[in-house]
Amino acid sequence: MSQFDADDPVFQLHEGGKMAVRSTVPLASREDLSLAYTPGVARVCSAIAADPALLHTYTWVGHTVAVVTDGSAVLGLGNIGPRAAMPVMEGKAVLFKQFGDVDAVPICLDTQDVDEIVAIVTALAPSFGGINLEDISAPRCFEIERRLDQALPIPVFHDDQHGTAIVVLAALRNAALLLGRKLDDLRVVVSGAGAAGVAVTKMLIAGGVGGASVVVCDSRGAIHSGRTDLNDAKAELSSLTNARGLAGGIADALRGADVFIGLSGGTVDEASLAGMAPGGAIFALANPTPEVDPALAARYAAIVATGRSDYPNQINNVLAFPGVFRGAMDARATRITENMKVAAALAIAEVATPTLAPDAIVPSALDSLVAPAVASAVAAAAQRDGVCR
Amino acid sequence: MSQFDADDPVFQLHEGGKMAVRSTVPLASREDLSLAYTPGVARVCSAIAADPALLHTYTWVGHTVAVVTDGSAVLGLGNIGPRAAMPVMEGKAVLFKQFGDVDAVPICLDTQDVDEIVAIVTALAPSFGGINLEDISAPRCFEIERRLDQALPIPVFHDDQHGTAIVVLAALRNAALLLGRKLDDLRVVVSGAGAAGVAVTKMLIAGGVGGASVVVCDSRGAIHSGRTDLNDAKAELSSLTNARGLAGGIADALRGADVFIGLSGGTVDEASLAGMAPGGAIFALANPTPEVDPALAARYAAIVATGRSDYPNQINNVLAFPGVFRGAMDARATRITENMKVAAALAIAEVATPTLAPDAIVPSALDSLVAPAVASAVAAAAQRDGVCR
Repeated sequence: MSQFDADDPVFQLHEGGKMAVRSTVPLASREDLSLAYTPGVARVCSAIAADPALLHTYTWVGHTVAVVTDGSAVLGLGNIGPRAAMPVMEGKAVLFKQFGDVDAVPICLDTQDVDEIVAIVTALAPSFGGINLEDISAPRCFEIERRLDQALPIPVFHDDQHGTAIVVLAALRNAALLLGRKLDDLRVVVSGAGAAGVAVTKMLIAGGVGGASVVVCDSRGAIHSGRTDLNDAKAELSSLTNARGLAGGIADALRGADVFIGLSGGTVDEASLAGMAPGGAIFALANPTPEVDPALAARYAAIVATGRSDYPNQINNVLAFPGVFRGAMDARATRITENMKVAAALAIAEVATPTLAPDAIVPSALDSLVAPAVASAVAAAAQRDGVCR
Repeated sequence: MSQFDADDPVFQLHEGGKMAVRSTVPLASREDLSLAYTPGVARVCSAIAADPALLHTYTWVGHTVAVVTDGSAVLGLGNIGPRAAMPVMEGKAVLFKQFGDVDAVPICLDTQDVDEIVAIVTALAPSFGGINLEDISAPRCFEIERRLDQALPIPVFHDDQHGTAIVVLAALRNAALLLGRKLDDLRVVVSGAGAAGVAVTKMLIAGGVGGASVVVCDSRGAIHSGRTDLNDAKAELSSLTNARGLAGGIADALRGADVFIGLSGGTVDEASLAGMAPGGAIFALANPTPEVDPALAARYAAIVATGRSDYPNQINNVLAFPGVFRGAMDARATRITENMKVAAALAIAEVATPTLAPDAIVPSALDSLVAPAVASAVAAAAQRDGVCR
């Protein structure tokens, strides 16, 4: 189904794309060219050949991230391939620039083979100061990220996992504050065990939620250690969560739960929601159609969040990724640790704290205070973790 | 040997690199984000999924080139690797922007394996509207370019070969005008059978020089069909040139020659130059040290050119590559043909024609009239050749 309509304002905006490069040095005179290009540039090349660490100081690599996809899981559109993924990657790149002053380059790869993707990104790594993986389907995304994180001396970050996880942790931290609850006292149900579900669950546990009382559901129901149909990522979740070994469907999981986090794209019926403990939180994050209509959710929870910009409490990754990379690169971090992600979440939460309210648990996606706060917290955590060059 | 000196103006200029990206769309409001990113962007993705040709219209791919190197033959510095090559690639990228309004991204690959380079660039191709190969050593560069040109539906251009060749043809065309000679009446000696030497020789023949009276010399002397030590590229040259089967060294080749084109980085002694026919041309293009000192060359030739900006008649690739890609992308060309390159050379030559003089056979590298003239000529040639999408 093509939705092409040249008169659509979206297509008018996209004509010619959304980004460009620019020179940051003068190029008007022979003298300018002799400094920026030959013969002067040869001295910079020789210096980097002698000391490769100078690459980050004397080229744009020190502030540049590749936004890498294979087009296998783009928005809610699915496996639409690398070409059709480009508008999203370009959008991501301009958000990096706008909010984090990070120079990002969209890289859409014409392969969906895990080994090839790892080999290609490894070969590309000298050109970039960080790798933001984007819209790569689970469970392939887990292996790709793990192998690249091990292979490369620069930060590697799968935004669909960790960007979402960071913002969910920030939102849940502030929701708990408002509800007068402690994170480790909440019973949490996560619906969806794809890239986001796996990462959100781990991040919540890293941030203080008790894993024993988290239940993650996939399309077959609650994940528990008795199931034999689990991939590696889900098997790991089964050991981290659901200490009671609860089995059954989403309705069983939600009975008495305080928090529902939807990351599945499915729907949840009202009867299931009615089983939740009163006064909790529902984060229905599927986009563009939340798992629970926000008006319905408000009947069963004190705090409701979605992924949409036209409702309050938008859980939007743009709160995280620009500041995460800005901070990692400012600190010359070689990777992004769990502590750096938790620090990012707390920084986001704290920006919202002065104006905290049930319809304002996270800052606006447009709040220009967020990325600098995140960057600063992430850089400090990187230094504490000793992962800086 | 590191030449690092933080007080050197070259290093001061290079701090933080030489380029950045910028958004070309507004991102200040929720409405802006909903058009440039979710949910609006999904409509553009769907349209491209249905019709991949829309990629070039609705993303930056239509005006974006990858400047790809493996760092194996950088300037005169040799095989310094991908990291040390980055300052040159970044410089190239900003020249693309400055002169051709082409958005170029430096890609420095951490492999020098031909098969891997071909596979990686093929996988990257959805992200770019063209591929500019740069500073890849011969003879590997020939195979890489040939295979990518066959595999990809976008222009592939090895600038060290064809950029140089285009500008040399432009210069020789104007030198011949000044000397009152016809191209097919000139005896030409090319010193160097690497990337530039091979491409210059072929381009001169495509542009009207008689191949029979061209002699190409490599480090072992004149290339002729009786030699058994020739790689594929040199073997091809032996069949295109030197119909007399001249053997021997550069002195033998230069005896009676009208034109010397140095692309080797070696030196030529005065006795050899003294054997040239009077009133010819010497293009001593090695950088930063020409094969022949320009003052010495002027004793034996009516027209002298170098690769340096501090002498007249600078043979600088920047006269070619920005306009070549601008024209190829304006025409939506799927490749760059011989006719497009010859058209580029003639356009460069014609910009210099109104002010033609022995010390002004090519335009200044800073002449802003050049790239538009080249682009227009290249686009027209692409249409004539029927290689446009």
